[in-house]
Amino acid sequence: VQLSTRLTSALGIEHPIVLAPMALASGGRLAAAVTGAGGLGLIGGGYGDEAWLRHEFEAAAGEDVGCGLITWNLANNPQLLDLVLEYEPVAVMLAFGDPAPFADKIHAAGSRLFCQVNTVREARAAVEAGADVIVAQGGEAGGHGTAARSTFTFVPELADLLTDIAPATPLLAAGGVADGRGIAAALTLGADGVMVGTRFWAAAEALVSPIAQQRAVAASGDDTIRTAAYDIVRNWDWPSDYEMRVLRNSFVDEWLGQEEALRARQDEASRDYRKALAADDFDFANVTVGEAIGQINEILPAADLIRALVTEAADALELRSLRADAARH
Amino acid sequence: VQLSTRLTSALGIEHPIVLAPMALASGGRLAAAVTGAGGLGLIGGGYGDEAWLRHEFEAAAGEDVGCGLITWNLANNPQLLDLVLEYEPVAVMLAFGDPAPFADKIHAAGSRLFCQVNTVREARAAVEAGADVIVAQGGEAGGHGTAARSTFTFVPELADLLTDIAPATPLLAAGGVADGRGIAAALTLGADGVMVGTRFWAAAEALVSPIAQQRAVAASGDDTIRTAAYDIVRNWDWPSDYEMRVLRNSFVDEWLGQEEALRARQDEASRDYRKALAADDFDFANVTVGEAIGQINEILPAADLIRALVTEAADALELRSLRADAARH
Repeated sequence: VQLSTRLTSALGIEHPIVLAPMALASGGRLAAAVTGAGGLGLIGGGYGDEAWLRHEFEAAAGEDVGCGLITWNLANNPQLLDLVLEYEPVAVMLAFGDPAPFADKIHAAGSRLFCQVNTVREARAAVEAGADVIVAQGGEAGGHGTAARSTFTFVPELADLLTDIAPATPLLAAGGVADGRGIAAALTLGADGVMVGTRFWAAAEALVSPIAQQRAVAASGDDTIRTAAYDIVRNWDWPSDYEMRVLRNSFVDEWLGQEEALRARQDEASRDYRKALAADDFDFANVTVGEAIGQINEILPAADLIRALVTEAADALELRSLRADAARH
Repeated sequence: VQLSTRLTSALGIEHPIVLAPMALASGGRLAAAVTGAGGLGLIGGGYGDEAWLRHEFEAAAGEDVGCGLITWNLANNPQLLDLVLEYEPVAVMLAFGDPAPFADKIHAAGSRLFCQVNTVREARAAVEAGADVIVAQGGEAGGHGTAARSTFTFVPELADLLTDIAPATPLLAAGGVADGRGIAAALTLGADGVMVGTRFWAAAEALVSPIAQQRAVAASGDDTIRTAAYDIVRNWDWPSDYEMRVLRNSFVDEWLGQEEALRARQDEASRDYRKALAADDFDFANVTVGEAIGQINEILPAADLIRALVTEAADALELRSLRADAARH
């Protein structure tokens, strides 16, 4: 089975499935496994630790992978882009900020610019900036994002926009896509492919504690929530538009709506956080998954996941077609 | 073209499209038009004004319609259910509260109990209470609801749950469904049908100011937001879990995050609100639509909308099937 779309033609890949560049979780081994299985793996460059980036690109050597960076952080550390481009990434994804200052350099290096957007307004700006692929992130997604839009309405509204202003630009649905039904639905809503985070966060190759993974696969989508608390204890200066979707735990529940109080004891809380992380204590440390965690029940290797996703998606599309055929007669 | 699902068989209707019982907007004429075109119309009983309810049931006379009520309000005014059941509704939908105390009376009257839920936990309780149909409301929806879940992940998680605990109970996707792509996607995600609000709010028969409708069809989904401000100025005592999704305007923007200050001048603000509403001033008064408003560009009669929705959905299902077929060869 193969799922061909405009995205697979544009990128020369088999399946329209892109690994979300989850900061620190999407390492080189996971990215290479996704590419090796016919998708496209993006390393989660995140805040851009140079040693980490070099290590993960080397771990992916031999496979065509890309890399994602946090745009507002890149604006403060523009040399990171040179480091990433040294490795000739297939694509660079920029998320959470203005991609325009970086587009020319990415294109000049022969790479593709993926722009993740959270509003229609940002999508227009990304097209203007020269985006090769638009990634529509709904608030369902795990990790950082905004609650401005959800995948179910955002994808068709952007598909219509792109038909008008950039008909050759592929659209990826990101946020909430964790199984073959989700892939089939995203294509039905007008996407050319999907960006998958949480399902691969729960892959064997992800740079994630197995203890966190086990806690997550037992959870429902009801158990995730948006919070700024982990950015406070990690001393990351995210613009206030963005929060993280994570699994609720004792720490998240304790500080919900109490961000100012947490900031007031930031130094102590940061020390406690680092201790909790080192001890795999996920009553405190973050389990960074999206709403789709409720559809995920086991940890599998990425190649097995891709095989299952593609088969399920093809089945979902065919089952629906049989129903439509029956209805027409 | 006809879209047959388990829902259409269970209800004896042609298309798996149910009118959301939007309080005050889904009147008898709109509900009758939706039923007349092959869907199921639900009158928006809302807070249960008796004269309004009688008037709207009479306006729908001759068509099989149902009615939606706000559960926490019904608990305070249980006699409303007797009034509604006098009209032999096809279904009673209960939303926002515990449906269990009302299930027996609804069933004894020969009606069906639709339970709208906002979490997986509520879905389990609704099945336990005897729900005949589960309505999964994502946070995309216009009007009251919660941001707990979004349609894209909530529907498949509930579909799996129902397969386990109530395999004969149909599931409706509510929130964000405004065109045929949305219907096709909802069925693909595991729903047996859809509940459509905003698209019918923008129908010719809706009890909505044409000035509000014109403002809404010019908007993007980016322009909606959740707020409690209109409940404050309307003196409605909603539990704090629920807010309303509306179009942003001067009033909404002024009081965003300032709910306590608004409560402090509630009497004056309520007077101003009533004046604004009477004057069709929608810089102040509410335009109650969901994120899907960005996919809606014109006001049409409900029967035309149903025809378009069904045709588009069938096309979306067939186009996808052609793609899947090609990919398999």
